[in-house]
Amino acid sequence: MNTEPGRLNPHFQPVALEHASRLINHGPTVLVTSAAGGRRNVMAAAWSMPVEFAPPRVAVVIDKRTFTRELVMASGAFALCLPGSALVDLTYAVGNSSGREADKFARHAIAARPGPVLGMPLIEPGCAAWLECRLLREPHAEDA
Amino acid sequence: MNTEPGRLNPHFQPVALEHASRLINHGPTVLVTSAAGGRRNVMAAAWSMPVEFAPPRVAVVIDKRTFTRELVMASGAFALCLPGSALVDLTYAVGNSSGREADKFARHAIAARPGPVLGMPLIEPGCAAWLECRLLREPHAEDA
Repeated sequence: MNTEPGRLNPHFQPVALEHASRLINHGPTVLVTSAAGGRRNVMAAAWSMPVEFAPPRVAVVIDKRTFTRELVMASGAFALCLPGSALVDLTYAVGNSSGREADKFARHAIAARPGPVLGMPLIEPGCAAWLECRLLREPHAEDA
Repeated sequence: MNTEPGRLNPHFQPVALEHASRLINHGPTVLVTSAAGGRRNVMAAAWSMPVEFAPPRVAVVIDKRTFTRELVMASGAFALCLPGSALVDLTYAVGNSSGREADKFARHAIAARPGPVLGMPLIEPGCAAWLECRLLREPHAEDA
């Protein structure tokens, strides 16, 4: 597992913020990664979408009962990693188990490194792109 | 144009409310239809997603400046129609013009009929499904 910050995979290139929506515009299932207090997690999410071009904002549905939700609320950040078809089984697996009791990265031997801006766990092997995101509070929508 | 209420196309079958999310789970571009005060409109939207299974709720991004937004706020309702590939040109066309000055249904000869529950214009020829939706207010998110 490469967890050395700053060691960018050369296959990944920066995307202008105003074009970030294009990465999820087509409605893919994404991997939501999170980290806080020395713990980390990854879950699959079918429900995410852009909501604004500039400033770039996305919406993603993360159930209140998930460990991911707990980590995101604690850190105020998350990342979206876009798995390719080679990761279909992994995507299904991390979408059908909780990371509260055991680290899914270790269980599934997922290579991840801390993101350059927010330190979120980024999965690059098998993924087409990733986005590090800051949480914007929407209390009414969050409680719905 | 068949605008007679209650004349359901026999190819369209009811979908249980708790399964409604499946109709847009894959992230399709949808046609958002609306009507209020004797006016109606249709626009394309790439940004929609389910947000809850039960009660079934969806989120859709409708720019503040659109005529659709005005009609949806006035009526408190809208519909999502899911175009098939035969409607790709129409979807592009209604996504690149405003219906404020001229009725897009008339301009593009789009057959629509009032929905059975909320009276929203439903497009069935070329569409795989439709959902009539009631607007749930989220003032903070709406103003963002």
